[in-house]
Amino acid sequence: MEMDLNAQVKKACFLQRLKDFPSKLKDGVTKHIKHVQKFGKDDPRRIIHSIKVGLSLTLVSMLYYVRPLYNSFGVSGMWAILTVVVVSEFTVGGTLSKGLNRAFATLIAGALGVGAVHLARLCGHKGEPIVLGILVFSLGAAATFSRFFPRIKQRYDYGALIFILTFSMVAVSGYRTDEILVIAYQRLSTILIGGTICILVSIFVFPVWAGEDLHKMVANNIIKLANSLEGFEGEYFPSSEKTSKGTNSSVREYKSILTSKSTEDTLANLARWEPGHGRFRLRHPWTKYLKIAGLVRQCAIHFEVLNGCVLSDAKAPQDFISKIQEPCSIISREAGEALKAIAKSIKTMSRYHVCVNTHIKNSKNAIENLRLALKVSFPETDKDLLEIIPVVTMASTLIDIVSYVEKISESVDEFSVLAHFKENLDPKLSPELGQHHLLHKGTVKPVLEGDNEEECNNSPHVVIAVHDEQPPTVNENNVNLGAEKTTVVVV
Amino acid sequence: MEMDLNAQVKKACFLQRLKDFPSKLKDGVTKHIKHVQKFGKDDPRRIIHSIKVGLSLTLVSMLYYVRPLYNSFGVSGMWAILTVVVVSEFTVGGTLSKGLNRAFATLIAGALGVGAVHLARLCGHKGEPIVLGILVFSLGAAATFSRFFPRIKQRYDYGALIFILTFSMVAVSGYRTDEILVIAYQRLSTILIGGTICILVSIFVFPVWAGEDLHKMVANNIIKLANSLEGFEGEYFPSSEKTSKGTNSSVREYKSILTSKSTEDTLANLARWEPGHGRFRLRHPWTKYLKIAGLVRQCAIHFEVLNGCVLSDAKAPQDFISKIQEPCSIISREAGEALKAIAKSIKTMSRYHVCVNTHIKNSKNAIENLRLALKVSFPETDKDLLEIIPVVTMASTLIDIVSYVEKISESVDEFSVLAHFKENLDPKLSPELGQHHLLHKGTVKPVLEGDNEEECNNSPHVVIAVHDEQPPTVNENNVNLGAEKTTVVVV
Repeated sequence: MEMDLNAQVKKACFLQRLKDFPSKLKDGVTKHIKHVQKFGKDDPRRIIHSIKVGLSLTLVSMLYYVRPLYNSFGVSGMWAILTVVVVSEFTVGGTLSKGLNRAFATLIAGALGVGAVHLARLCGHKGEPIVLGILVFSLGAAATFSRFFPRIKQRYDYGALIFILTFSMVAVSGYRTDEILVIAYQRLSTILIGGTICILVSIFVFPVWAGEDLHKMVANNIIKLANSLEGFEGEYFPSSEKTSKGTNSSVREYKSILTSKSTEDTLANLARWEPGHGRFRLRHPWTKYLKIAGLVRQCAIHFEVLNGCVLSDAKAPQDFISKIQEPCSIISREAGEALKAIAKSIKTMSRYHVCVNTHIKNSKNAIENLRLALKVSFPETDKDLLEIIPVVTMASTLIDIVSYVEKISESVDEFSVLAHFKENLDPKLSPELGQHHLLHKGTVKPVLEGDNEEECNNSPHVVIAVHDEQPPTVNENNVNLGAEKTTVVVV
Repeated sequence: MEMDLNAQVKKACFLQRLKDFPSKLKDGVTKHIKHVQKFGKDDPRRIIHSIKVGLSLTLVSMLYYVRPLYNSFGVSGMWAILTVVVVSEFTVGGTLSKGLNRAFATLIAGALGVGAVHLARLCGHKGEPIVLGILVFSLGAAATFSRFFPRIKQRYDYGALIFILTFSMVAVSGYRTDEILVIAYQRLSTILIGGTICILVSIFVFPVWAGEDLHKMVANNIIKLANSLEGFEGEYFPSSEKTSKGTNSSVREYKSILTSKSTEDTLANLARWEPGHGRFRLRHPWTKYLKIAGLVRQCAIHFEVLNGCVLSDAKAPQDFISKIQEPCSIISREAGEALKAIAKSIKTMSRYHVCVNTHIKNSKNAIENLRLALKVSFPETDKDLLEIIPVVTMASTLIDIVSYVEKISESVDEFSVLAHFKENLDPKLSPELGQHHLLHKGTVKPVLEGDNEEECNNSPHVVIAVHDEQPPTVNENNVNLGAEKTTVVVV
């Protein structure tokens, strides 16, 4: 009786599950589809790349579908398919690097392979496989060893692989066929066809340039530092006037910079294979980005300490914090502004060094104020002295960060010369920019304050500014009065 | 006349250069050879790997050299050569991952390809290339898109590539040949032969296990932290008694840890493909290494700040430094010892938690002493207060480092349970270990102090220890008195 009941319950359960299955399957499938859609939307270039690969494959299939082409290449056409699949990389640099490596390695290894077969034939029928075996073993081992050298690994790893592959294949198959030159020629020509299709599709159909990605990545990392600094100010001094709720989540934006080295290295390596494109010339100083990125990462390391101060439970007495709050806020805000200006300078490839230097000077002045504030507000009782240690650490880390911002600015300055950045003046620094002098007979529309920046970037006018050399003064409302004697000439 | 002289000078120069050429060439060649030799000696496994690849290539060439084998496989033997070249990776995990990916992807794509050809043939001679083209385009694009998903990219990237390759090749060549099943079978069988040769050579001829490399790397990174701490003590307090000249170079050993993430990720990923080997079981918790490595890197980030303090010009007054020197020295020494014990625990796969905990407790006690020292020795004049900021930063960073050492110790403890570390007692902590209690009738040879450690690790004896729960006391000579009531039972 009990077993019967048990069986009935089991059956009901099974039926219920069977009933639920379609809806569960539907839920699962829609969830997956949504996930895939979101993934594609996050970076639509992924979808475009997939379509590009499909396109290249369809193009190269013509070697089989079109009778005259099939007649001249025959089954060797599969090398073209193989090449297309293997060489199609996401970035133009990746495709060029693999394509050129493959082409040259096949050429060299094919020639050597043909030579090896001719050499081996001199040794008679019995000696031939032995000589070929020794040659394949030694060249294969030597080329494999060469792949460990960092310089070869970085740029020619794929070439070395294809060298071993082609040499072995030509040398070994040479033992069984007399048409070795035909094989080598067909292999080389189909690889060239496949490689050319890939490279053309990669460059001319929605190209993804590794160099541009690197350029944007470095600029965005600097912006992340700036956002983290802003977020830090809001989180460490919650009473700060400028705090908005949005900034708090940004305080940990710097985290991704700590582990971005390998991506940057790869991009810089691929960018060197790319021809000039957009704003980048052929010999753009790609390796200099790595220097800047290294400094940015060093700076992000100090943010990690700053973040530790934010998360720490041991907070100093509120009155002490409030005494140093103002200089600390100014330091982080000005350093953040300097970082933003540096990032903008990289993004627009124009020099904003006046603006950057002013912000750095402002933050340095604030450091002096901070020192002063620390001097007068050191607590007197023993207990308090220990409590303020985390605050002192925070302050000293902020000072370190400013010195890194300066280093980043210097290295971007150096870079801007090499990369031929265009000279530019930040209109924010020249309050008189609104009142243009009329120097020619046409009517010049007065530029409104809010429009200054766009106007200045886009107009072909030459803007000359003269700045006084005195350090900028920082007043309580944190208005930059650094460029007081600016005169503007619009030609 | 002058031209004549000029020509004579040029000729003399040219002759001189011609004369120097052999010796210069010789110098250059010997320099290169020495460089290559040194590179091979640095990690002899590189040479062994190169020889292994040569060996696999020679073995697979037999498909051509041996008449019966050539008769059955024909020119398809080249797929075996191709497989050997592409699948031979440095580590066993790499070879297995590529080999299995290649085999399964070929199997699935081959079956789908044959199906696609049969489907296309239903649409008549004109419709066939169109249907095939659409299938190749859509499956190629979909598989390419799937390679962007992190989970697929991490483990099945090569499989997806081979899937596209095989499917396109089988589907497209199916248009021109009726022997498509023969082609698919030959391709699959030769790939299996090539892959099997690679995997066997990789596992049985001087194997390089990614798992073991990861294991050693994590342990060595912890040792690097310990060395940097020791070096820091010597460099920051040059008058310290324990300073030897050798330690100073070690202070920046931690630097390599900051950028080791990608190597660790790769090794952990490959290790999961490896079968059980040596001390590691099949389901060894490889991903847990990444957690430990993450904490080690977090700790290394604080070393960067410490290093900044060492390099900083702004040194505090000597009398202030000398007041906090002792607790700081003890903190760094004890934290260093704790790190060394943790690294030893990982290396030997035995638990040394008593030893580690004692050192951590000691360093925590020293932190209390440091706080006390800071309390009594805060300078009174205003100027000095600012001067000591870098020292306070240093001290607070040291305190942070101790908390990270504790976190690392906890995470290694967790890991040791999952990885079945054997229980072990550090003989240094148990002074009574020399006097074993005789519990059975055989003679137990008294263990000498110096031999304890080895004896303890190798003997099959069960060691049971009872510790008192009081925190260890730290006396001036820094002797650990943590485990005072230890009783040892040898069964």
